[in-house]
Amino acid sequence: MDLWFSDFHQDNVKLSINVEREVYSEHSEYQHIAVLDSKEYGRILALDGELITTEKDESFYSEMVVHVPMNTKSDIKTVLVIGGLDGGVLTELEKYETIETIDVVELDQRAVEVCQEYLPQSKVAFQDERVNLYIQDALKFVRRKENAYDLIIVDSANPFGLNESLFTREFYGNCYNALTENGILISQQANSFYQEDVTAFRHIRDRLQAVFPRNTVYLTSVPSYAAGYLLVGFSSKGIDPKESTQLASRSAISTQYYNDDIHVGAFYLPNYIKEMLTSET
Amino acid sequence: MDLWFSDFHQDNVKLSINVEREVYSEHSEYQHIAVLDSKEYGRILALDGELITTEKDESFYSEMVVHVPMNTKSDIKTVLVIGGLDGGVLTELEKYETIETIDVVELDQRAVEVCQEYLPQSKVAFQDERVNLYIQDALKFVRRKENAYDLIIVDSANPFGLNESLFTREFYGNCYNALTENGILISQQANSFYQEDVTAFRHIRDRLQAVFPRNTVYLTSVPSYAAGYLLVGFSSKGIDPKESTQLASRSAISTQYYNDDIHVGAFYLPNYIKEMLTSET
Repeated sequence: MDLWFSDFHQDNVKLSINVEREVYSEHSEYQHIAVLDSKEYGRILALDGELITTEKDESFYSEMVVHVPMNTKSDIKTVLVIGGLDGGVLTELEKYETIETIDVVELDQRAVEVCQEYLPQSKVAFQDERVNLYIQDALKFVRRKENAYDLIIVDSANPFGLNESLFTREFYGNCYNALTENGILISQQANSFYQEDVTAFRHIRDRLQAVFPRNTVYLTSVPSYAAGYLLVGFSSKGIDPKESTQLASRSAISTQYYNDDIHVGAFYLPNYIKEMLTSET
Repeated sequence: MDLWFSDFHQDNVKLSINVEREVYSEHSEYQHIAVLDSKEYGRILALDGELITTEKDESFYSEMVVHVPMNTKSDIKTVLVIGGLDGGVLTELEKYETIETIDVVELDQRAVEVCQEYLPQSKVAFQDERVNLYIQDALKFVRRKENAYDLIIVDSANPFGLNESLFTREFYGNCYNALTENGILISQQANSFYQEDVTAFRHIRDRLQAVFPRNTVYLTSVPSYAAGYLLVGFSSKGIDPKESTQLASRSAISTQYYNDDIHVGAFYLPNYIKEMLTSET
């Protein structure tokens, strides 16, 4: 059988991956959950038909959303991950012995269960005793927190549909309050190549800039994602992302993508992205 | 009509772009040539069914293969472009008044004619009086040259089929002889993400290292290409690509992608690529 999974990067552009088999599929209360096996990308998680993560390139994403903030001058001990079902982000966080607590907030209990059953990394990652899972609405969860986290990672797919409340000014304001003085907010900001994503990017930036004094973005290659890369937002009350501590090389944390040079180079943006950042202010 | 052009990045992975119309199509003596119009990527050139260049992201590629060598300490006056039908590379080269001669060698006369008719940039680029077009086999053309060029750009698609002779040790040896003392060879080396491309990458590197004393690669994002990025090979007799002259910022050459930071950051490679470079020696 010739079976293809197509992820629409835009209405007029799609990436298709040949699938060996559909491992699991269900409609939960909130969304359609699918686990697929493919020759080229290994195991794939798709939510509502959208590619969320693949075995082959998930570390490119996870490493960059974790090791960049972890290797700034912020001394991170308490972390909140919003989403993070697949365990990729948790796996990278758990490499740091200095982290004391990792709270994970996810709305869809079934999505968590499916990931823990079908993604081996997820099962292992959630067993770390520093991890506390809360099945709750993230907007409400964050609202009740004050000065509680050194790092918040919004590990959610895109600013439409189910996750829409995670891209509002209210949500970012709550994150600001939930962060400590040296706290950092990491958020996905899609790419700035396709027009639809540029619009989403501007929307997110506007809201972040209304709340955080310091906002910048950095870039990581993710071959299965639209345009082949992802812009990651780095927002803080003062911490400078470019003042790297080079912890990664000192403590010999093993990575497939991240290194000290990449930490620096990820903030060197092409002109068309730089222009977007300056034109808006 | 719902018309899609699919470019196979691998046997099991393809990128599909919705096409408004097929503008032109023919089988030349050497290959199938197609020009397509699309909403998201603008005009597309495809040879033998493979995406060669799109209006939307061709500058990401062209700027990086031109401005990186042009902004090293090599004083480039004479250039040879092998391929370069679409005019993208020529357009970037022509921004430098210091360049005196640009020779272009292409095998397929029809491909040149089609590009000049259907890609406006190509028509303009070939009109520059410094450009000399030779319809010839590149391997034979380069064999006759000695100490003739400061820069050779191999602007060819991939190491299979029609272009196979451009990826041999003999060809690279001829390029070495054709280059001046401070000369630079720029070559496409695909990505090192998909297995098939890793094999091609290793093949090219082996051959280049047998000929040039100094070889490195740098990375540029090209959303329509496999894995969303391209590794570009920089080979020289001694010139160090990282000693940038920052000419681009001084002479105010307008670019969409390249800038002084990108020149530096493009050489900062993810661990999985770095490991591939060191494991082979």
